[in-house]
Amino acid sequence: MTPAPLDMSERLDRLRLIRSENVGPITFRQLLIRFGSAAHALEAIPSLANKGGRKRRLRIASRAEAQSELDALTRIGGQMVHWGQPDYPAALAATEDAPPVLSVLGHLHLLTKPCIGIVGSRNASTNGKRLAQQFSKALGEAGYCVISGLASGIDAAAHFGSLSSGTIAAVAGGVDVIYPRENTDLYHQIVDQGAIVAELPVGTVGQARHFPRRNRIISGMASAVLVVEATQRSGSLITARLAADQGREVFAIPGSPLDPRARGANDLIRKGAALIETPEEMIGILNNMPAPQLDAPSNPEFLPGSGPLPKEEELLRARALMDQALSPTSVAIDDLIADLNLAPALVAMVILELELAGLAERHPGNRISRLAPEPSSTESNSEKPTKKPASLQKQADLF
Amino acid sequence: MTPAPLDMSERLDRLRLIRSENVGPITFRQLLIRFGSAAHALEAIPSLANKGGRKRRLRIASRAEAQSELDALTRIGGQMVHWGQPDYPAALAATEDAPPVLSVLGHLHLLTKPCIGIVGSRNASTNGKRLAQQFSKALGEAGYCVISGLASGIDAAAHFGSLSSGTIAAVAGGVDVIYPRENTDLYHQIVDQGAIVAELPVGTVGQARHFPRRNRIISGMASAVLVVEATQRSGSLITARLAADQGREVFAIPGSPLDPRARGANDLIRKGAALIETPEEMIGILNNMPAPQLDAPSNPEFLPGSGPLPKEEELLRARALMDQALSPTSVAIDDLIADLNLAPALVAMVILELELAGLAERHPGNRISRLAPEPSSTESNSEKPTKKPASLQKQADLF
Repeated sequence: MTPAPLDMSERLDRLRLIRSENVGPITFRQLLIRFGSAAHALEAIPSLANKGGRKRRLRIASRAEAQSELDALTRIGGQMVHWGQPDYPAALAATEDAPPVLSVLGHLHLLTKPCIGIVGSRNASTNGKRLAQQFSKALGEAGYCVISGLASGIDAAAHFGSLSSGTIAAVAGGVDVIYPRENTDLYHQIVDQGAIVAELPVGTVGQARHFPRRNRIISGMASAVLVVEATQRSGSLITARLAADQGREVFAIPGSPLDPRARGANDLIRKGAALIETPEEMIGILNNMPAPQLDAPSNPEFLPGSGPLPKEEELLRARALMDQALSPTSVAIDDLIADLNLAPALVAMVILELELAGLAERHPGNRISRLAPEPSSTESNSEKPTKKPASLQKQADLF
Repeated sequence: MTPAPLDMSERLDRLRLIRSENVGPITFRQLLIRFGSAAHALEAIPSLANKGGRKRRLRIASRAEAQSELDALTRIGGQMVHWGQPDYPAALAATEDAPPVLSVLGHLHLLTKPCIGIVGSRNASTNGKRLAQQFSKALGEAGYCVISGLASGIDAAAHFGSLSSGTIAAVAGGVDVIYPRENTDLYHQIVDQGAIVAELPVGTVGQARHFPRRNRIISGMASAVLVVEATQRSGSLITARLAADQGREVFAIPGSPLDPRARGANDLIRKGAALIETPEEMIGILNNMPAPQLDAPSNPEFLPGSGPLPKEEELLRARALMDQALSPTSVAIDDLIADLNLAPALVAMVILELELAGLAERHPGNRISRLAPEPSSTESNSEKPTKKPASLQKQADLF
């Protein structure tokens, strides 16, 4: 079932919605379902945030801001693709926190080809880079697009190997921000022959906390991820873990225990990743893999519903119960529903209010925790992706 | 239950029995059960061979030959240990084709310590040898004896690492035959500080076909086997396979696909061997392994029995049926029993006859096949271990 194309007004409203304060990809999706369109959601969220306990005004991205971001992207030849539309990568769309919009530079059609992620150390060995390039080239010849992160080392080698067959770089900052600088030539070659994708607005400089978010795009767009060289604290292990969480096959190339750069890949194999030595072997496995399950992993019972809003008296009671039940330690939303004996749609609505108020945060696996109220500040949150759990935040600091 | 010590006469008769033509370790064990002692078995086998269809006389090792082998071993300070006796390695004794006798030079007590096998390429890298020695040393410090094959490369490094803590070399030829010559110093150090064990008589020069037989002693004495470096056609993979067949844990150290010496170990990991990087990790696993199951894997129903011999008329019928049923393609003995609807003890007896006649051969997993009658020759078979299946024979040629 192909969804109806979005008109320009709804496109801009969706961009406004995801660029508004306290709206992450999951909240975005819940709001769309609840209110039917981004336009209606934008009208509703200030009052939802207030009901959730927010004192300050919720910062909503203006139409001018959204138009300005889209114009800037258009000026450099980029395009924006929206979650739920046919030009959006199908595998990524099926992940629970898929970016509502992606900025793309280069060849848009590559986004709908079957993709394999190749990731590994920035500080890679000559052998590691050679392997990454070999695998990437062979995967390209076998009809797969290769996606990586434009980092030095393994990522760069993976892009080089697949430049002519199809390569996609998912970047942590804006689609126009070249990082690291040493990959400037490669970046331009990818724009010419492949594609660059970004979740954050044009011009955004990627920060440490953005990298794990970017990694979920690599694993999310891929049907499988190959880890070539990775130390035990490498960010590519985050990508591998996200890939496994997203139901992607994880492949790892082993190495000697005397080589610290093999430790991460060896550990993945120990934990169940497929040990792989040659591209032929990997392609053989890929060609025999069942087609990926591309249903969004949401719990339909838990959706906030599209009918009339719950009655205010029910909401009042639910807010009081949840205020007591939530703590800084995350809890499974299903457990919360069972414990409080509340209708799932009611709980979903209160969570939306709390999130928009900045008083709760979502965690992977449909969990939620209480957040301490922010000290009053004027910091803009317009670039902020969904908040990360502490563990990811910590690992992000490794980049 | 400690078995009664063997008197010297039965010791010599057991040595005669295993050194006689067409008697391999499994046949040896069946004959002992059937006839109660080697002395009685020696009396019975010429007539059994004739009933099995043998034309020429069965070559039986004389008492003088056995005494001479034992004297030669004693002169060089060696000792002989017998299957079923307390000084025989318990783990090896539980394997289906454990050698009935082992010649030992050096410290006999090491044979009853818990052992770990370390095997790998002769043509090993510096790194590989370093790892083998590291693991061997650490395993020794953790209380394990290390067993290997005295080959160059990984084997030698494994012995060096465990010289002071306990090392055993299982050799393919006689216990006094130093092979390869470059390991002469190591050999003498092992005689001084460790132990050398051999299945074949003193003075026997090991041949290609003996090496896989020797490998089953390494894996059989070990509770686990570590493969350090192995090409895809390495003999250490035979040891690993035998170890797995014997229910031993197999560990393998991974390596880069760019290193051909890692291919064998990587392949073992792909097939389920435990990927291991550090001695500490391996010792942690070993210390938590359940005690090995040391029951002989024989099928008691199928034992030839110790009561009266089956009636000749029953045997006649069974011989005729089995003559028709057997082919050069091996068959599971259980299937044979079911197909022919014969008493297991009857089938066991006919198989004994055919083996002694040189007209059938046993294969791993309780299987049997027909052998073409030998052309009349006078070749002595006194050193010949149980015949090997063609696949093993072929792999043995790699040594």
